[in-house]
This record gives sequence, C-alpha cells and structure tokens, in this order.
Amino acid sequence: MAKNEVVKNALARLVPSEVNGKKQVPFMGVDKYIPQGRKASPPISCAGQFPKDGNKVVMSLEAALEQCGLRDGMTVSTHHHFRNGDFVGNMLLQACAKMGKKDLMWFPSASFPCHEGAIELMEKGVIHHIEGSMNGPLGDYCTQGKMKGMGVLRSHGGRWQAIQDGEVHVDIAVIAAPTADPFGNANGVGGPAACGSLNFALADSLYADKVIVVTDNLVKFPCIPWQIQGNNVDAVVVVDKVGDPSKIVSGTTEITKSPERLLLAETIAEFLDKAGIMKNGFSFQAGAGGIALAFVLFLKERMKKKGVKARFVRGGSTKYLVEMLNEGLTDYILDGQTFDLYGVESMRDNPRHVATSPFTSYNYNGKGFFGTMLDAVVLGATEVDVNFNANVVTHSDGRLLHGIGGWQNCLFSNCTILAVPSVRDRIPVIVDEVTTLTGPGELIDVVATERGLCINPKRKDLLDAVKGSGLPIKDIRELQKETYDICGGKPNPPKRSDEPVAVVKWVDGTVIDSVWKIR
Amino acid sequence: MAKNEVVKNALARLVPSEVNGKKQVPFMGVDKYIPQGRKASPPISCAGQFPKDGNKVVMSLEAALEQCGLRDGMTVSTHHHFRNGDFVGNMLLQACAKMGKKDLMWFPSASFPCHEGAIELMEKGVIHHIEGSMNGPLGDYCTQGKMKGMGVLRSHGGRWQAIQDGEVHVDIAVIAAPTADPFGNANGVGGPAACGSLNFALADSLYADKVIVVTDNLVKFPCIPWQIQGNNVDAVVVVDKVGDPSKIVSGTTEITKSPERLLLAETIAEFLDKAGIMKNGFSFQAGAGGIALAFVLFLKERMKKKGVKARFVRGGSTKYLVEMLNEGLTDYILDGQTFDLYGVESMRDNPRHVATSPFTSYNYNGKGFFGTMLDAVVLGATEVDVNFNANVVTHSDGRLLHGIGGWQNCLFSNCTILAVPSVRDRIPVIVDEVTTLTGPGELIDVVATERGLCINPKRKDLLDAVKGSGLPIKDIRELQKETYDICGGKPNPPKRSDEPVAVVKWVDGTVIDSVWKIR
Repeated sequence: MAKNEVVKNALARLVPSEVNGKKQVPFMGVDKYIPQGRKASPPISCAGQFPKDGNKVVMSLEAALEQCGLRDGMTVSTHHHFRNGDFVGNMLLQACAKMGKKDLMWFPSASFPCHEGAIELMEKGVIHHIEGSMNGPLGDYCTQGKMKGMGVLRSHGGRWQAIQDGEVHVDIAVIAAPTADPFGNANGVGGPAACGSLNFALADSLYADKVIVVTDNLVKFPCIPWQIQGNNVDAVVVVDKVGDPSKIVSGTTEITKSPERLLLAETIAEFLDKAGIMKNGFSFQAGAGGIALAFVLFLKERMKKKGVKARFVRGGSTKYLVEMLNEGLTDYILDGQTFDLYGVESMRDNPRHVATSPFTSYNYNGKGFFGTMLDAVVLGATEVDVNFNANVVTHSDGRLLHGIGGWQNCLFSNCTILAVPSVRDRIPVIVDEVTTLTGPGELIDVVATERGLCINPKRKDLLDAVKGSGLPIKDIRELQKETYDICGGKPNPPKRSDEPVAVVKWVDGTVIDSVWKIR
Repeated sequence: MAKNEVVKNALARLVPSEVNGKKQVPFMGVDKYIPQGRKASPPISCAGQFPKDGNKVVMSLEAALEQCGLRDGMTVSTHHHFRNGDFVGNMLLQACAKMGKKDLMWFPSASFPCHEGAIELMEKGVIHHIEGSMNGPLGDYCTQGKMKGMGVLRSHGGRWQAIQDGEVHVDIAVIAAPTADPFGNANGVGGPAACGSLNFALADSLYADKVIVVTDNLVKFPCIPWQIQGNNVDAVVVVDKVGDPSKIVSGTTEITKSPERLLLAETIAEFLDKAGIMKNGFSFQAGAGGIALAFVLFLKERMKKKGVKARFVRGGSTKYLVEMLNEGLTDYILDGQTFDLYGVESMRDNPRHVATSPFTSYNYNGKGFFGTMLDAVVLGATEVDVNFNANVVTHSDGRLLHGIGGWQNCLFSNCTILAVPSVRDRIPVIVDEVTTLTGPGELIDVVATERGLCINPKRKDLLDAVKGSGLPIKDIRELQKETYDICGGKPNPPKRSDEPVAVVKWVDGTVIDSVWKIR
C-alpha cells in the first residue's frame, strides 16, 4: 500500500487523504458535505448489436467475461443476496484467475465466509483489493494488512451513492439470479435459490459498463417481475447452481432465548409505546438479529392490545413481519432483503410486500430517501461510546469482522435505538471511545441495554416523553461505570499500528474513520 | 427559423443537417448508425437539502417552478397518458406564461387537441417550439411554418433515446399523477384520473434536472406502486383535477363496424394462423384502432378453436386484451399504456398485467428492446408506397396531424403488418412515394388491405408459408393499380415549399425525413 497522508476529520478521527489512488473528502459532519457534478452513466448501447430474438445466453461465465472485455485492473462486482450460500462470487473470481487476469478490484455488495477463497487469489495477485463489506475471514485478512489496496467499507446506501456518483466505476457486474430469461430480465422470487429481491445489484445493473446475469433457472421471456431489467444486460450464463438454498434463507430465524435479552427487547417495545412513537400510522424497522426479532414480537402484542396499526414496516423481512402484514397490523412491508422463506413467498405473492432498493431506502445523495421517514429503528452495534458514537464493523480488538449493511442509513430515522448487551464476552460495550466510529452520536437517540435505556441528552423531547413512565432510563456514563465495575475497568485498547488498512465511508462518500493494521 | 443546409439521407430523403441549433445525423439505414459516448445523467442531489419528513408538497405549480429555477429558454416536459383529457400540460404552459418566461421548449411525450392553447403561447413567445408528437391543431400550426423552431417527431422509443443520450436535456419535468404521496412516489393506477402506467414520463423523471409531480389524489407515504420514484422528485403540487377522466379512458373502445374493415381484420387473423405465426408461445401486439381491435377478436376465436396460447401480448391494453389474459389465452400482457378502464383495473390488480416503459419495450439505444421479440404486430399507416415504405405522421396533403407513437419501434417485430384501407376519402393509400417516410420498407412485411394482402418480396419465407392457403395475396403494384383505376389515378402531390418545418427522427436518433411547410 502506498504511504499516505492522514488527516483529522470533523469527529477528530484520523483518516487517509487518499485511498486506492483516489483523493478523499474527510467527514465534515452530518448534512454538511454538498456534492457537486452530475451522476455517472454507462456507455450508450445499440440494439442492432444485440440478438434480435433477445437471446443473450452464452456458453460459460468465461465466455461472457471474454465478450465483455475483461482486462487486468478492472473492477468486477457481485451482490450478496445469497449471503453465505453464494456460489457466483467464487465462480467469477475463479474464472478471472483461470483467464489469467491480474490486479482486479472485487466490489461485492458484501462478502461472507464462503468467499474465503478470495484470500488465495489476493495472494496470487488476481485480486488487488476488495471494496465492500467483509464479514469474517476477509475482514480479518484485511486487518492483518495483507491486502494490496485499502478496504473501503460502505453502507448499502453508500454503495449506491459511490456507484451513482462515479466514485466506483464498475467495469463488469456479475449478477447471480434465482430466475432469469434469455434477455437478461431477472428476479429473486422464483427458482431453487430464491432470495427475494435482487436490488443490491440494481445499481450495478444500471451503471456498470457491462452486465452479466448468471442463473440456474432460465425461464421463457418475459421473466416477471424484472427486478433486474434485461435491457441493461449484455449476456446471460446458465449454471447448475447459483447458491446453496439452505444457506440463502434458512427458513428459521432464531429469536433470542436469553432472558436478559428478551427483557431488553420487551423494554424497547415498551419504550416505543410509552414515548408515543407507537401510534396509528407509524413506521419502524428492525433487523433479523435475536433481540430485534423478539422486539418485533413484543411490539406486535402491544399494537394488537392497543389497536394500533403501522403504515409501513421496513424489512429485512422475516416470518414475524410477514405475520404482521397478514394480520393487518401494517399496510406495507418495504423490504430490502428477505431473511427467510416466508419473506420470499410474501414478496412474491403479496403486492403489499414491496421490494425496495438501496436507492429508494438509503441513498443519501438523492432527493431524499426512505430512511429519514422511519419513526423508529432498532439496530445493533459492537461498541458505543459515552457520546453515543457507535461502532458496527470492528471488535474491540481492532479486527474488522462485519459490514455496515443499512446500519448507517437507518441512523437517520426519527428515533434510532441501538440494542446492545451492556457486556459482551466480559468486555464492556459502552466505552470512552469506539474502536471504529461508524455512526456519529448525534444521530443515535437511545442506547438500550438490559441494564437500562440511555437517551441521548440532545433528545430532550424523548426524555420528557418518558418521564415518570417507570422505564429504566439511565445516564450513559452511569451505565458505563456499572459495567466497568463488573468487568474490572476499561477494556484493553486494540493493539494496532498507525497504518490504515481500510476506511469507513459515511453515507455521503466522505471518510468517517479508518481501520488500522493490527500489530 | 434559421436557413439550413439540406442533405440527402440513405433513403434519398432530403433532411436538414441542423435542427434547432443541433447538428443532425441523416438516416444511414436500419442498424447502421452506431452511437458513441455515455448516457446523459442528472445532477447529484443531497438528501440533506430535502425535508427529512419526506414532505415535498409546495403551494402551487408556480411555486414549484420557481423552486426548480425555471428560466427563459429552458426545456419543460410533460407526458400524455391523459391523452386529450390532460389538464396539466396547459397548467404548466400557463404558469410559465404567468411567470413571464420566454422561449421555452415544450417537450411533451405527445400533445393533443386539448393543448391547442399552446398556439397562443407560441405567438406570444412563451413557447419557442415543440418537440414531440403534435396530434391535430399543433401539428397543423407547425406545417403552416408558424413555429419559431423546428418540430421534432420521435417515436416513444426515440424519445427515450433522445433523453437518455443527452440529445434533449430536460430542465424541468412536470409529471401529472393520478396518485402520489408527499415524497413524490406516483402511479397511474389509482385516483379519479387513473390512466394505468406513468411510464411515458419515466425517462423525464430519471434524467431531468428537476422533477415536479402534480396530483389530485395525494395519499400517505408510501404510494404503491411507485411507477415514478419519489427519490427522483423535487416537489409535489396538489391541484383540484389533473385531467378529465371521461377523456382519459373512455371505457368503451370501438370496434370497426365497417364490413370491409371487419373482413380485413379477419383476413389478418387468418394470415397469422396460416403463416404459422399463431402457435403456442407466440406473441403479438395490436393497437387500439377499430381494425386492430377487431383483429384481436378474430385472432382470439382462432386461438381458442386451435387451443393456442400466447406467451405475451403487448398493449396499449383494452378490454379485449384483458379478456384474453383472464381467459388464459396469454401468460402476460406487457403494457405501455391502457386505453380503457378495463386495462387500468387489470394493471392495478393482476400481476400478470405488467406495466412496461419505452425503455423496456422500445429504446433502440439499449442492450436490445422487447419490440424485436414480437412475433407479429398489426399497425396502421396514412400512406404506404410500393417499396413498403410507410407514412404515419402526415396526410397526403402534407399536413402534420399525427404522432409516431410506438409505431417505428414496433416495426422491428418478426412480422410487421400494416392494416390499411386501400382507399381513404377517395384517395389511394398505396402510392409511388409516401409524403413523409416514417418507416423504411425493409422492416414492413405485409401491407394488408380489404382488397388483399401484399407481402414484402424480401419475406420469401412468408410468401412460401401462405402458398396455396387461399389467402388473397397480391403484388403491391397490382393492388396500387386497382386503386388508381378506382380513384382516377395518382393522388395530387402536396403543395409544399422547400422549407422544412419539422423532422422525423428514426429510432436511433438519425433523421429519416422532413415535414415541409405547406404553400
């Protein structure tokens, strides 16, 4: 990695002024950076150069990559709707290796442990570096300082923004599709690898120079719905299996069994109720983690008891959100990704279960985005500091093990609640300073732990709303002290060097923090 | 209008080398012009500059135009889903007049007699010129040579292409919406002015610098489906009425009652059957004209009798296509615009009735388009010549009275049939040379009249397929002679000057012909 000047951003975090040869803008504060210029755009195509019968099927992924002009140094992208059951990311990287290509930038919307083979290809020089979420081994590899380029972590919305604004130019997008037709229309609601929507690949399909759809379920034109439009697709490849269905959607999403966490989930539901957020026409989002799922169930009971109906709930959808929709407790599910088969089927069959994209829901450099209209979101975090800044990508030992997902984008909701255990593996979660600042405290309204709820002092309205409610409201420093007392003081600082190995982008494309090589 | 060099294109038509200050490419032949460069793109926006609660409603259209920075000389666009029942086009133009703006280019996807008031605004200098279909009085005005700039006629696909490729830069798009939410999500399937889809405005919403949605049916976020995405919308204006529902969709679409035309419709259905085109899994498109509707009914009877099912039919949908869908005679309707309330309701309620856009169906400068995948289309024409070239925009007197619609785009089907009466108002329809060459003969396979079917000699396969079928196949020159005999010879040539007042674009953006000022 080239030596790099490091500058201090508006949150006093040290960030490199240049990343992978591109000049960076340090984070300037929420809503402070105003972008200039026009959006990126793909080359103009010509239907005369495409088959008149609409059949774009080619023999193999290699043939498609050849046709699309794959060259050394290009950027190739994949999506992560198949999560840890994805086969196509590896197919692509192996094909690139077989074709003898070098120094590629791999730009997945997220990578998972199943993509661990990418490490070997980085060692061999096929892949230069990865920009995108690196869950598990690839993130670990990055924090060991072994990647040739710097990792760049973006939220779902930030990834859209980066493509849209031309910060990342995708040369060839490879889109795994559970169902597709020979023209390239594709969706995620049908076929053996059904995963719901394909919208993490939507920006790639719109902005990449070349687009390849890979499917194991080729249907006759037209493939309906066309979440990916064939009019943007250059070639279609049919393979045996695009992924392992058992890992794509599990069919069972686990609610936490821990009594403490159940209590926390219940308390958050109670908070929404007592703070007056849970009222007719409201909206909320909760993830698929154990606490979040339990929260949904507790909230649902309260909604039923009080006769409250939501206007919309945002998914990551699960069985529990689908049940709310089917029981008339919400008008709509607006869904970025389905986490189980109930979600997939509901998205396929219920017009009120609507697939959203990072553009609609999360893109900050647009004319607004859905995230700001949410009344409440319940999210997780690995660490929170006493100023409500939070970390979601590294552990306290400094290892990069998680992606940002939609987390940063959701912080713009009207009431952002981080549900965290106060202690994790005997390490306090509320710290003086987070290892990696992924979300600015000014956007985080409540830190909810099993030992009490800490409301951000700037949200006087929320503090007033729950006054006398009997809810366990606590000052965050008081809560921190409690956990320090239990754990025997502050957590050990991470053993890190002064060499940045990855950066965390804010939703507007500025750099909010760095991830450092571990010593 | 500036004096202008005129050059001969590949079809030997004289076309201006420059139009409204922009250099033109003369038509080079079907599939011959290969575009260069990258697509146009709108400015990058910033959610921080939009209301966090998603409410973009402003007081009035004037306030919205003010906010969007309307200035002299800008290009403002509207769509034509309301056809002759549109109110919003006039609202926009009147608001511009009231605001004292000058020299605007109005860029409707089509204009109708209801927009006749635009003439006064052209006289006053508010509107400099119109690019877009001019049905009726505005087209007539144009052929009188009274417009300050040149008219530019584009097909639905060509309009998308022109916006996409940056040939036409829309400064402010004004989108009339039967239903919308305060964020700007909008659709055409709900509300008193329901018109089906809004996809004629889709390119405008994606590429314009600023986008205003005008609705008379504001619903709570989220407006589902969002045919127009609020993330592209700057402002929302609520008005009493966006249009006259009785003129938007009539609820009754008339089948021809003329015995001769009914016979023609039946013969075309028979042709599709006997030529082997009507077979399981086939596809077709027919418009909403009297002959086309009758053709659909005759074809349907044949399909039922033979147990044939289509894979998809393309609309302009009507009751008759909807019945085919509901009776299981087609898997899908792929629909660009609904022509009656049955179409609107079906599009709203039936997931197999799919709204398409000019991008999916018609955009030539894309990676293919649906039009080439159609097995057959039945279209109209005002004139056809003996080389199968056809005219769809002017009458034989040279007056410009019709838009192109999707007509040019549909010519790419595998069997393009023009259904025309052999004689219209005592004027022969098959001529030596068409007044305005809108579609090249090489793409027109059959000219079908009540006096017989003329198959393009280059379609030997079709001639072979119907040999011995008993169908009334005729040589086109023979048919021409018959009608000349009846009408007493050639039609009078139009009395036209050598001053071009409008150009007809081909689907690739090149100029295929000119419309001349009438003497």
